[in-house]
Amino acid sequence: MNGAHALIRTLVEAGVDVCFANPGTSEMHFVAALDDVPAMRAVLTLFEGVATGAADGYGRMAGRPAATLLHLGPGLANGIANLHNARRARTPLVNIVGDHATYHKRLDAPLESDIDALASAVSGWFRRSLTTSDVAADAAVAVAAARSAPGCVATLVLPADVSWGDGGRPADRMRHRVPAPVRPAVVREVADALTGEGPRVLFLGGNALTERGLLAAARVAAATGARLLCETFPARLPRGAGLPVVRPLAYPPEPALADLAGTRHLVLAGAREPVAFFAYPDLPGSFVPEGCEVQLLAEPGEDATEALCALADLLADELPSEPIAEVSLERRPAPPTGALTTRTLAGAVGALLPEDAIVVDEAVTSGAYLAAATAGCPRHDWLTLTGGAIGQGLPVATGAAVACPDRPVISIQADGSAMYTITALWTQARERLDVTTVICDNGAYAILDGELERVGAARDGLRARRLLDLTGPALNFVALATGLGVPARRADSADELVDHLRWAFAEPGPHLIQAVLQSVPR
Amino acid sequence: MNGAHALIRTLVEAGVDVCFANPGTSEMHFVAALDDVPAMRAVLTLFEGVATGAADGYGRMAGRPAATLLHLGPGLANGIANLHNARRARTPLVNIVGDHATYHKRLDAPLESDIDALASAVSGWFRRSLTTSDVAADAAVAVAAARSAPGCVATLVLPADVSWGDGGRPADRMRHRVPAPVRPAVVREVADALTGEGPRVLFLGGNALTERGLLAAARVAAATGARLLCETFPARLPRGAGLPVVRPLAYPPEPALADLAGTRHLVLAGAREPVAFFAYPDLPGSFVPEGCEVQLLAEPGEDATEALCALADLLADELPSEPIAEVSLERRPAPPTGALTTRTLAGAVGALLPEDAIVVDEAVTSGAYLAAATAGCPRHDWLTLTGGAIGQGLPVATGAAVACPDRPVISIQADGSAMYTITALWTQARERLDVTTVICDNGAYAILDGELERVGAARDGLRARRLLDLTGPALNFVALATGLGVPARRADSADELVDHLRWAFAEPGPHLIQAVLQSVPR
Repeated sequence: MNGAHALIRTLVEAGVDVCFANPGTSEMHFVAALDDVPAMRAVLTLFEGVATGAADGYGRMAGRPAATLLHLGPGLANGIANLHNARRARTPLVNIVGDHATYHKRLDAPLESDIDALASAVSGWFRRSLTTSDVAADAAVAVAAARSAPGCVATLVLPADVSWGDGGRPADRMRHRVPAPVRPAVVREVADALTGEGPRVLFLGGNALTERGLLAAARVAAATGARLLCETFPARLPRGAGLPVVRPLAYPPEPALADLAGTRHLVLAGAREPVAFFAYPDLPGSFVPEGCEVQLLAEPGEDATEALCALADLLADELPSEPIAEVSLERRPAPPTGALTTRTLAGAVGALLPEDAIVVDEAVTSGAYLAAATAGCPRHDWLTLTGGAIGQGLPVATGAAVACPDRPVISIQADGSAMYTITALWTQARERLDVTTVICDNGAYAILDGELERVGAARDGLRARRLLDLTGPALNFVALATGLGVPARRADSADELVDHLRWAFAEPGPHLIQAVLQSVPR
Repeated sequence: MNGAHALIRTLVEAGVDVCFANPGTSEMHFVAALDDVPAMRAVLTLFEGVATGAADGYGRMAGRPAATLLHLGPGLANGIANLHNARRARTPLVNIVGDHATYHKRLDAPLESDIDALASAVSGWFRRSLTTSDVAADAAVAVAAARSAPGCVATLVLPADVSWGDGGRPADRMRHRVPAPVRPAVVREVADALTGEGPRVLFLGGNALTERGLLAAARVAAATGARLLCETFPARLPRGAGLPVVRPLAYPPEPALADLAGTRHLVLAGAREPVAFFAYPDLPGSFVPEGCEVQLLAEPGEDATEALCALADLLADELPSEPIAEVSLERRPAPPTGALTTRTLAGAVGALLPEDAIVVDEAVTSGAYLAAATAGCPRHDWLTLTGGAIGQGLPVATGAAVACPDRPVISIQADGSAMYTITALWTQARERLDVTTVICDNGAYAILDGELERVGAARDGLRARRLLDLTGPALNFVALATGLGVPARRADSADELVDHLRWAFAEPGPHLIQAVLQSVPR
């Protein structure tokens, strides 16, 4: 048995049975071995950033890793932006990078590059398999590393001769580290802080953001008067009727600072201390106000959900007898009519979001009203841009749909960001994935307009503005989707968007809607 | 004057007056400063790999660097594959990467990543500007480093606060290292070797591939009987009627080994020793046959063209009196008719290639007949995929067209590779660049079919084959180009391709032709 064969069998045995691939010559034995291991599903992508983003979406929804298959250093490089997002999401992911044969590297052939340096920037675990007899064991360790709490990108470099050499044999699955329990003393300390004086905030993230975790957090809030907030960009947030509304902290620094102003106790559950996404002249980088005490209930790698449950139980005596007000009622907005704006776009999604949907949100500035409009929709999951590397939405939607074939995926996508990984649509078409992509078309990198002003750099200059503008020519997403095999329609009004969403949700398979937003004077 | 302003003025002063940009928040002061320095032309791309590939194409044609403007680590990562190609091409390129403010980095905000590790993999020179007063001087050194022979990617990291801080002042242009002259003793040794016994090959690359260098090499060949070959993937190769035909060494290992078999003296001029692109079981990695003596006339960084001229002068007495047979006659194939195949595609290009054209060749397997069909066309330049990282053709064509607005660019592009950086078409439309893109549509990663067999991994398995197949759904490049604002037509026969090429060459601005190649049974 060759190394590739042993590797694939080991992955399958360890529960990794999907591989998002963009292979080249050095990966041909891996590709050939796929025919011998039908349990491994290989999904072809046209660009490595789609493969890595899809593996991120898969891992967030499946709770176990998918593999990638990338072609040497440049293939890895093309996948790094979405591996960066996966790293920030703490998604379990087994990143397999083919390389030249071990003895070929010294020749510095054209595709030779420093894979180790590239991989180090995004990997929580890294290994280069050096012999065929080791590769399966290396893969078993990689899977365990990827799955060990809190989850990471585990990169395994697979030289071509290790892959094609004889003498491989599959390795057994290895145990991974589960989230560590939080000590009762820590829970008691946090309970004391939350029942103390002054404004208190319970700040949730990571593995606190489960249904049980959210419901426990709502009980804590009801018992103590603490406010609930969560990370600005959660990897996966359960939402909808019957679940507490947990508002993500605002992205712009001014409202985030205002939101936390005066807080005396900030308790972190699965989240890190909130910081500004970017530095701005004359604004602080940390959002923790002066004089605020930060307490850690559970850090990433610990079991924040269980810690919240323990905390809620400890505070049970403080609970009011009334039902918990923070839980969303089932309530949808009416389907909107008239002009298509960010507000009516959100209304249309809220009116029609299918049951048990997975929402992938890379709407950026166009998504301002989505959270409010969907809070009372049926139970759904919300996946966001965790690492700020745009071009994540379409791939993550692709991987989420592979992980959850029975759940509808709706991918709400900014126009500029969509162009980074637009070929994800082709993979959606090929795999017949039930993904509805809504392109929020405002013809601009609109977020940068605001940023240009926020950093104090705003001018009237046309040359600067032209670098934020996506018209001239305008992007025709209906044509782009058609070119990639995905049925598409254009909506110029809220009524049309509602019609098109009904069309897309009614039919299986991928669809795209270009939602042309009414331009707002800038 | 802020740092961004001083930086841009310094770049312009040093001759860098084009910037291929894909900015984000941390680059907003750079963007704003563009309005104050109209001499800097900023070209927006929709993806960083387009920006870096365009800067590569620009540098190859202009002989001086363009700048890029990329957004932090993930933006750099998206540009790395084409920076890798630029590195292999030894293109002078100033790679500007924005970063968080210096004091913000410790907060590990979502977009924080190890830029230094990422940049190290592709940069010949690297620096992080630490103060506003230094940034202009750093930029002057970066330009000099990029331009110093043999040329490299010089990466300058620009923290946001260095950019927005006050106290910048432009720095003077710095001198760069020109190619070193080759010592006369070396030229004499090479002359002795080339007039010695046994088969001899003069192997050209890098800065040997100029008109003067090629003509001198042809005189050397005529005087000594040595054969002329060049690198498989030259950065820029002048070709056409009146110039010697210099055949690139074959890409597959078998013909390359056969071509060099029995060679007693291999003389390198601007090129490195030829090695296999990939390792294959049972084939050697080096193409230099046993018993062959390798001699260095000029290494990268030395002046190979002048060395070839000196060598030709030294051998002038050996020159036959007849004209040099190796020089191409003016001769074009007749416009082809009938089925559209790789052969008739090449014939159509050969029949119609405009004068003074720039050909960007990422045709991969579909380009087999292009060299022969175009050898007698009017004088043109040929730009190839130097580093093997696919997705280079459309961006390089974009940059070449910016560098040479008066020359027609024809970009011959494999279908699979085109999808990596397809958004380059949008930049071509926006800048109204005279680029004709011909997509060689064979519906497959056809090269991998061959590679699957060559590595000994071929099977009849359908699951493996499906990973090399680009149909289901078929890519519609006419729709894709339309979506990106580029007029496009589909050719299903050689006659149609000829018609469409005439259409594209007659009109200014970008055009795309989807050349649907007759499928060959596999």
